[in-house]
Amino acid sequence: MRAAVFHGKNDIRIDEVPDPKIEEPTDAIVRITHTAVCGSDLWFYRGLQDYPAGSRTGHEPMGVVEEVGDEVRHVQKGDFVLAPFAISDGTCEFCRAGVHTSCTHGGFWAGITDGAQGEAVRAPHADGTLVRIPEQVRDNDPLLDALFPLNDVMGTGHHAAVCAAVEPGSTVLVIGDGAVGLCGVLAAQRLGAERIIAAGHHADRLEKARAFGATDVVDTSSEDAVEEILEMTRGGARHVLECVGATSSMQQAIQLVRPGGHIGYVGVPHGPAKSGLDIISLFFKNASFRGGPAPVRAYMKELMDDVLEGTLDPSPVFDMTVDLDGVPEGYRAMDQREALKVMVKL
Amino acid sequence: MRAAVFHGKNDIRIDEVPDPKIEEPTDAIVRITHTAVCGSDLWFYRGLQDYPAGSRTGHEPMGVVEEVGDEVRHVQKGDFVLAPFAISDGTCEFCRAGVHTSCTHGGFWAGITDGAQGEAVRAPHADGTLVRIPEQVRDNDPLLDALFPLNDVMGTGHHAAVCAAVEPGSTVLVIGDGAVGLCGVLAAQRLGAERIIAAGHHADRLEKARAFGATDVVDTSSEDAVEEILEMTRGGARHVLECVGATSSMQQAIQLVRPGGHIGYVGVPHGPAKSGLDIISLFFKNASFRGGPAPVRAYMKELMDDVLEGTLDPSPVFDMTVDLDGVPEGYRAMDQREALKVMVKL
Repeated sequence: MRAAVFHGKNDIRIDEVPDPKIEEPTDAIVRITHTAVCGSDLWFYRGLQDYPAGSRTGHEPMGVVEEVGDEVRHVQKGDFVLAPFAISDGTCEFCRAGVHTSCTHGGFWAGITDGAQGEAVRAPHADGTLVRIPEQVRDNDPLLDALFPLNDVMGTGHHAAVCAAVEPGSTVLVIGDGAVGLCGVLAAQRLGAERIIAAGHHADRLEKARAFGATDVVDTSSEDAVEEILEMTRGGARHVLECVGATSSMQQAIQLVRPGGHIGYVGVPHGPAKSGLDIISLFFKNASFRGGPAPVRAYMKELMDDVLEGTLDPSPVFDMTVDLDGVPEGYRAMDQREALKVMVKL
Repeated sequence: MRAAVFHGKNDIRIDEVPDPKIEEPTDAIVRITHTAVCGSDLWFYRGLQDYPAGSRTGHEPMGVVEEVGDEVRHVQKGDFVLAPFAISDGTCEFCRAGVHTSCTHGGFWAGITDGAQGEAVRAPHADGTLVRIPEQVRDNDPLLDALFPLNDVMGTGHHAAVCAAVEPGSTVLVIGDGAVGLCGVLAAQRLGAERIIAAGHHADRLEKARAFGATDVVDTSSEDAVEEILEMTRGGARHVLECVGATSSMQQAIQLVRPGGHIGYVGVPHGPAKSGLDIISLFFKNASFRGGPAPVRAYMKELMDDVLEGTLDPSPVFDMTVDLDGVPEGYRAMDQREALKVMVKL
């Protein structure tokens, strides 16, 4: 079969690779119909993260079950399924507590199994990992496009909002206008936030934020952005979604959270942010700080219900669609910021 | 009147100072009967914190109201009152939200008013700050001793437990065996924790932790302490109370919290801990991190009810009692770790 393979910095190719095979009785093989390029894929693409040449790529699979191992009970051949970016068994202590990203037996695509940017992939712990999509949706392309982002960016935006304790009537600040930030806006709106301030530095993305429910937008490339938000909120927002992971955006989150408020952070901390948090300001504000890789598996059902009812549609975060051969171009376009997020349809 | 005054590193004296006077109509004058020396007082005592020579000291007042300003409604002359370490008006947005330490008009003893280690003190925002102690307790010395720590260390230990989301059945790790850590043990026990591991490096204090409800104690001066706790908890505690504020103890809290768990931190971050947190580990665990200066005013009523009912007694954290003239000796004893915490009775 064919799949995307990383050959080195800025070099993704579609290569012939071995067909996936059932290796464990809990595995399933999924024929991919939809996958995507993620902002986090750009880390290795740009050479900023160790990633061995020859590695498969991608972690957002959706498709049709082709084969299941002997112990798989909850999905069967022919089922249409969506899989979170994290693999989880669904039964361990952490899965039961809703922290599927810490699953005792879990792991990641392009980690404990192959990457998902290919014609098919082996799905470990199929019963825990794969979520069935109702049969009647199978040919409804707009609904499939709306469901697909639940496996990563929409689940992550929702996690940021949950960690920031967003509730009806909340005033929410969303830092970051990437795909996750935009999904954070949508999640805050869905949870009943009254005021949503989207902060970013791309005019077109901030427009998209408005369409997703942002009541105010702030250009963070302006020197006065922090002052402006402090003024708009009269002293900071009670709920802050940090959707970048950079040192500067983390600091902004701490500067802009209201005393007693909540920061939900979901951008993988990178650079000095890994260890450069200004704890003392966080401390004196008595603000909570909670986040991590989103356990999107835990949120799948409630978000899927809303998509199927037509009240949630995160698909506009995708602004470019390619086929498998277009994956290298998809990486290039995202790297060059020509595309916000790229969907791959096979 | 006479009061403790800081003259320089390791130099506290009892000096003649002006009597306090009502300055604002919301002030009260409190004649001190009980006050204390706090672990945080040692920062300036040891010369590790800027503190002008000539400054009054102390922030834990309890005593009798001697005079009130024209606008004071909730306390009157003759009332016996306890005051939190933070002054708060009780009416602003943050006080109403239970974050009294962020009160818009608030501040601290030995900050916006004089220090509390003296014969009397001016209490700003008396209606918000002062808490009346029931009349029938006035002559009950053991009950007064048990009530007194609610104004600082017991409220702070409770805040750590609340921030760490301790609930009935919890497994709790308390890092630090100072007065706050011991109160954290007591708070966790009071909130129904099933297992409480106290970690510290003073054998006598860990014994006190056992008396307060610790089911296990770990000597953190041992190199294997982290391994030992990971083994005891099979991978970390779901609830961690960080009651020190040092870089090493913060790191231990992050190392020892269970994925999806909660860290409550109340030790004022100092040294590199101010900005040296290992965010990436916290991130991948999806652990929450919440704390700050305890809004002890918010907790006063529920804790006072328990003391008055005889189910809560944090007074054993005090292991030395002095009179006003003994305050310099109290500082010396705490600095030399001869005393855990010193009560001052006038």
